[in-house]
Amino acid sequence: MKSPIPFYLQKILDSVRGNKDGAVADYIPELAQANPDYLGIALCSTTGHIYAAGDAQQRYTMQSISKPFVYALALQELGLDAVRDIVGMEPSGEAFNELSLNRNDHRPVNPMINAGAIAVNQLINGVDSTVEDRVECIRSYISRLAGRELEIDRNVCDSELEHSERNLSLAHMLRNYGIIQDDAHDAVLSYTKQCSIAVDTRDLAVMAATLANGGRQPITGEKILDADVCRLTLAVMASCGMYDGAGRWIAEVGIPAKSGVAGGLIGTLPGQLGVATFSPRLNAEGNSIRGVEAFKQLSADMGLHLMSTENRVGINPVREVEQNDDVAVIHLQGHINFSAVEAVLHQLREYDLERSQVALDISQVSTLHKVGRRLLKEGLRRLREEGAEIAVIDPDGILTDREMSDGTLVPLADAEDYQIAGQSIL
Amino acid sequence: MKSPIPFYLQKILDSVRGNKDGAVADYIPELAQANPDYLGIALCSTTGHIYAAGDAQQRYTMQSISKPFVYALALQELGLDAVRDIVGMEPSGEAFNELSLNRNDHRPVNPMINAGAIAVNQLINGVDSTVEDRVECIRSYISRLAGRELEIDRNVCDSELEHSERNLSLAHMLRNYGIIQDDAHDAVLSYTKQCSIAVDTRDLAVMAATLANGGRQPITGEKILDADVCRLTLAVMASCGMYDGAGRWIAEVGIPAKSGVAGGLIGTLPGQLGVATFSPRLNAEGNSIRGVEAFKQLSADMGLHLMSTENRVGINPVREVEQNDDVAVIHLQGHINFSAVEAVLHQLREYDLERSQVALDISQVSTLHKVGRRLLKEGLRRLREEGAEIAVIDPDGILTDREMSDGTLVPLADAEDYQIAGQSIL
Amino acid sequence: MKSPIPFYLQKILDSVRGNKDGAVADYIPELAQANPDYLGIALCSTTGHIYAAGDAQQRYTMQSISKPFVYALALQELGLDAVRDIVGMEPSGEAFNELSLNRNDHRPVNPMINAGAIAVNQLINGVDSTVEDRVECIRSYISRLAGRELEIDRNVCDSELEHSERNLSLAHMLRNYGIIQDDAHDAVLSYTKQCSIAVDTRDLAVMAATLANGGRQPITGEKILDADVCRLTLAVMASCGMYDGAGRWIAEVGIPAKSGVAGGLIGTLPGQLGVATFSPRLNAEGNSIRGVEAFKQLSADMGLHLMSTENRVGINPVREVEQNDDVAVIHLQGHINFSAVEAVLHQLREYDLERSQVALDISQVSTLHKVGRRLLKEGLRRLREEGAEIAVIDPDGILTDREMSDGTLVPLADAEDYQIAGQSIL
Amino acid sequence: MKSPIPFYLQKILDSVRGNKDGAVADYIPELAQANPDYLGIALCSTTGHIYAAGDAQQRYTMQSISKPFVYALALQELGLDAVRDIVGMEPSGEAFNELSLNRNDHRPVNPMINAGAIAVNQLINGVDSTVEDRVECIRSYISRLAGRELEIDRNVCDSELEHSERNLSLAHMLRNYGIIQDDAHDAVLSYTKQCSIAVDTRDLAVMAATLANGGRQPITGEKILDADVCRLTLAVMASCGMYDGAGRWIAEVGIPAKSGVAGGLIGTLPGQLGVATFSPRLNAEGNSIRGVEAFKQLSADMGLHLMSTENRVGINPVREVEQNDDVAVIHLQGHINFSAVEAVLHQLREYDLERSQVALDISQVSTLHKVGRRLLKEGLRRLREEGAEIAVIDPDGILTDREMSDGTLVPLADAEDYQIAGQSIL
Repeated sequence: MKSPIPFYLQKILDSVRGNKDGAVADYIPELAQANPDYLGIALCSTTGHIYAAGDAQQRYTMQSISKPFVYALALQELGLDAVRDIVGMEPSGEAFNELSLNRNDHRPVNPMINAGAIAVNQLINGVDSTVEDRVECIRSYISRLAGRELEIDRNVCDSELEHSERNLSLAHMLRNYGIIQDDAHDAVLSYTKQCSIAVDTRDLAVMAATLANGGRQPITGEKILDADVCRLTLAVMASCGMYDGAGRWIAEVGIPAKSGVAGGLIGTLPGQLGVATFSPRLNAEGNSIRGVEAFKQLSADMGLHLMSTENRVGINPVREVEQNDDVAVIHLQGHINFSAVEAVLHQLREYDLERSQVALDISQVSTLHKVGRRLLKEGLRRLREEGAEIAVIDPDGILTDREMSDGTLVPLADAEDYQIAGQSIL
Repeated sequence: MKSPIPFYLQKILDSVRGNKDGAVADYIPELAQANPDYLGIALCSTTGHIYAAGDAQQRYTMQSISKPFVYALALQELGLDAVRDIVGMEPSGEAFNELSLNRNDHRPVNPMINAGAIAVNQLINGVDSTVEDRVECIRSYISRLAGRELEIDRNVCDSELEHSERNLSLAHMLRNYGIIQDDAHDAVLSYTKQCSIAVDTRDLAVMAATLANGGRQPITGEKILDADVCRLTLAVMASCGMYDGAGRWIAEVGIPAKSGVAGGLIGTLPGQLGVATFSPRLNAEGNSIRGVEAFKQLSADMGLHLMSTENRVGINPVREVEQNDDVAVIHLQGHINFSAVEAVLHQLREYDLERSQVALDISQVSTLHKVGRRLLKEGLRRLREEGAEIAVIDPDGILTDREMSDGTLVPLADAEDYQIAGQSIL
Repeated sequence: MKSPIPFYLQKILDSVRGNKDGAVADYIPELAQANPDYLGIALCSTTGHIYAAGDAQQRYTMQSISKPFVYALALQELGLDAVRDIVGMEPSGEAFNELSLNRNDHRPVNPMINAGAIAVNQLINGVDSTVEDRVECIRSYISRLAGRELEIDRNVCDSELEHSERNLSLAHMLRNYGIIQDDAHDAVLSYTKQCSIAVDTRDLAVMAATLANGGRQPITGEKILDADVCRLTLAVMASCGMYDGAGRWIAEVGIPAKSGVAGGLIGTLPGQLGVATFSPRLNAEGNSIRGVEAFKQLSADMGLHLMSTENRVGINPVREVEQNDDVAVIHLQGHINFSAVEAVLHQLREYDLERSQVALDISQVSTLHKVGRRLLKEGLRRLREEGAEIAVIDPDGILTDREMSDGTLVPLADAEDYQIAGQSIL
Repeated sequence: MKSPIPFYLQKILDSVRGNKDGAVADYIPELAQANPDYLGIALCSTTGHIYAAGDAQQRYTMQSISKPFVYALALQELGLDAVRDIVGMEPSGEAFNELSLNRNDHRPVNPMINAGAIAVNQLINGVDSTVEDRVECIRSYISRLAGRELEIDRNVCDSELEHSERNLSLAHMLRNYGIIQDDAHDAVLSYTKQCSIAVDTRDLAVMAATLANGGRQPITGEKILDADVCRLTLAVMASCGMYDGAGRWIAEVGIPAKSGVAGGLIGTLPGQLGVATFSPRLNAEGNSIRGVEAFKQLSADMGLHLMSTENRVGINPVREVEQNDDVAVIHLQGHINFSAVEAVLHQLREYDLERSQVALDISQVSTLHKVGRRLLKEGLRRLREEGAEIAVIDPDGILTDREMSDGTLVPLADAEDYQIAGQSIL
């Protein structure tokens, strides 16, 4: 069977195609040449399935879409504290402030505005890095996120450098306040090269999915970023990614997102998927008009909203409970987070397990969150305290720390030992 | 077995108990009398399980915590457009603006600041409502959210009315700009009564869980708000709920939240749970200091973060595929959202189903999102196009609209008809 | 001879009469009824000469024009320090701030905006004053400034009180911050009555001339305000009187000014004159359009500009020097300020006075500034030190302190004693 | 006789000498080396008398003090409209805005802040000027203002160029918005050289006096600037010269002023004098601390305040009226501005001149303002209309346009023809 998802994506493109509003970015000649009619979309699940429609393989430069990814790299290399010393994480609100520097300490207010992105770029590869090494470090990292070798578009880069008064102004001011150490022209050169990495819409969807997937590239399987880094990056995208109107975006669309002036737009739904669109005509704020429309449809039609109360994570963690007179086997499944373990523990209160041999089968658990592990062990310990004999069936060894709060270890058991002729009682 | 969750909550309380920073709100005598040492927490899952620790049954007034709930009521009664005509949804940023009115149209920038909340209060029960009727409408609604009859604390209310210069100033300015129609004193009276509804921390956790649960009260089962209304309310809480520092809160804690000056603090994780804390000592911004600490722990230790990439919603939607030569039964489970249906459709590509009788068993699906329904039907239609004979096993009738894109209806089947001796191939 | 000045004023009126731009203030019905075609002008010199043209005797309410005068009264009653504790003296710049309260201490930024004027009104007649007494105190003071008994226009006042949401908002906020103590409604009542004092354009010109004249009413001769108070009041009018665009106003017009929403506009050129215009049609900032035009002409055509470098104060202080072999009489005239005494002392360096009897004739000096007195005495003392015999001819006793820096007194002499047959050497 | 004025100035220096607060500007090494104890003052009257005390001949760089003078040059070269196209004239208010660019059109808000001064510098000598020519044009002009050849301090200039990140940032942003056309580095180079012109305190006093004198250098007598240009420049100094706190400065000191970071401070009282101080220790806003104190004393003790109501310009314009039966001679004196001519005309109303030969003797009038000329001629015309025979005694030809409103010319007369044996009636 051919998946209907590409057709669904095509339908979204068709419904926005007629919108000819806005204009291609014209502040540099190379961008102004872009075909305004290009329209593409791609979607990548955290399981690595990719779907695309339209001009999804057309190449263009990342521009500001590079910002969240390089911010993530800085967090990964230096940690949150060091990064927060040079850039904040608050929305800039009304752009009442030309530079968007913090009033008190002159840090850029967030890494999604140019001043912040220039400062973050300078954090990569150490303060003494040459521009060449820093840019190569970033290009190589972005390539790993995309799963293929990417290149810098020299024409766009050169054209942009000829029209970089604003960025030069920002860089000089950052240097004035000691936020960056490097020469202002080098800082702008380095940042402009970062912005000039050429990608296609599929690449962007995969990169966005890598953030959704806690830093593991869903196609290559490479673990590139820590989950914490992804969480912080997505939070900053959510509050600062779409410039002004962050509140409306999170209410109406509810997908942490970032746009680029070449027409790209990415979104990430944590744990679920990455999505990217491409359409070069921009609105006054510099966001792709048809891209924004497509995201609104994705959110409304497909329930892809961060605040969707239908996102019942950790539902049905108990696959089955088998019990006979003496023995009970509790089969868990899926992702065992707090909500899941709460459900498990709540369910177990209904059973009279005090005199049973109780085995917790976690062989079909996909991920076991730290709090899930702790609470499950504590539940087992309490069962033993109440008289039960406990064990865990864990053929894959996902219960990495078996020590319980009383200092003893959770006993392990084999599944075969608990093949019971009892009835399923789920 | 006794659940370890209350003990876990107790541990959180213990770890923050020593923090004696901050001070009880003292701008009105009645609040100043609060015992600064009170400390309580409660948690309610969307499945209606409640856990509590500490002084969770101590009563206090809602104050600003009433804001998101009354905003939700206004959305429910009037719809987003009408509400957005009088109040925005953007963070106020630096409180550079005494009144937090939008520069251009003078609307309050969001419903979480006082000007916005006073304006929203006026939307309830119609523009011609008496103060008494409006307040009763709100009290009754909040009571339904809490699942018990709540009362207004007359002492706090009267004391607050004696110190309401700031709110009177806001109300007069709102009236000056035509945002509200009612007399300023009546508007403040009505709003102050709303703020004076007395609750305990369990009540607040249940109310927060109702938002998490798409508007269905998880204990009483009453459907009070639409899922869309809850989604919008949570979005506004996420971007505007914690005053300044919205960006840091969403990055560090990642739980849409709202605090009250009496010491309460609520948080909602959509689809999962509501949580509430109580500790009257406040920081300079008016947030409960130990409450904020407790939320940071909940987020860090329990993975309760909106941006957590471990929230793999819709994982494992395919419970089992049974197949023999002619027949295939695909058993789905859990919440079938976009990600789930994407996974189902992707998985089915691996099977050769073109000449089979294919039955989709959705009897164990807990919820079926609109996009899930649509894509599943489209998948089935395509299977039939490719030669398969299709049917759905849906004993509970959750597939509310069986019409496919070619105008025909998805055939229904009984589970017994597909009891196959085939092997499970999951 | 009939003075041509009224005809000159008439010409100014004629040249702006055709301008029908703007609209009468319509936020209260009583103001909206004003005849938009009224056009009047009046000018009063510090010597008390009044000239008028057009509808200069038409009555209307002072509105904001009362602000500088009541500010002056507060300065007179309480001194600068006490007044500055509750209101600043900085321009409000872009009206980015609804309330124009200082960011840090919440004082209104200046007394020319409503928040400041409400706060200043509350300073009059003591904090415990009744509204009635406070208003009577202001009405009586304004009447002395005008030189006739003025009355409050009850209709305008009542109408304004019915549309005072904005002022009530300000008053509540001022009370919230402890800037005012009185009940907000009483504060607005008191301020609104102040604004409702009815005047005509001649009255306003005389009042403005009283400020120009250092506080002495030029018609009645009553000393109402200290010169220091007038100087401060004019400075605040110069920097804050015309709302936004203070910089352009001082550059283009250069006359400290204040407008009222009823159509009045006053200007004061310190030491020279007061001027007032009346034309009810207002621009977007609430300033009388034809009034502003008339002031531009007054400034451009008549050289009435604060920064005019042609304002050569203290020119020609030496009326004549008579000298024969032994005696020299130096006749001074006019206003002896620093520049004048500098000119005198410089001129005297040219004469060989060391062995003469030198008499300084100050009988025709109109005013003798403190610094003039001091430097003149020091000059005389030095002449004596160099061998001259010195005396002052001061029949009117304007040299109030004759003690020189060596502790001796300047000798006095009679004019007759110095009737010399010498030649005038000026 | 030795003038006591230098001693008076010395006393002011002595009274501020003990104030060791503040610190020498240390952002560039060359400025940091300045002797912090230097203290000097100089004063120059519009009549060209110079007085000085302390280290008045010590040299230092002009820095920001160059701003008003180069602004004046731009106004002189291009006119107000062209200059206002690139720089505003409003105070920047709270420095809430790093760049102080106008929100709407991105023009610098005024020429006294760096962004504005850089833009104004670019206006000099045409848009195509080389840096060298532009700087020479400015150096030569400033030299004419000072009355001697000034030089650029190469060391300070070079040192400053090494620490010019902030100015480079401003220049790039100005270029970004099209406010300047030149390369940003050239713009900063040109502006920095302007700032590095070395002067002493006497030079600055003379330059300030040139502004006070309507553009005529009071020592050399050269007419360098138009009076209109000086008036505008002084207005901008008054509202924007002392950064924040413009309102307090104009209220407390009342002298249009400008400070430089090398320790200089100038002030100009239009029509009267220029004054300058030098003391390198600065307060947080970059103003010379002892300089500010000295100005406060000058203002308070010497009545040098723009708003002083004792500045009775045009007082005593009628020197004498001689009259016998048939003939009246009216002797005018001093500066005949509006106030003066008003006084003359008012006085003449007292005389019965209808059948007389009336001669207006303006031989001792020092300046005759446009409006004075016009109104005097109109008065004479009316006298003739009423039956008098009129003439003007004007040996120096200061009545440049003798045509009256009826098209006839004012007749001229010789003084000798009016030697009357009448009595003086003044």
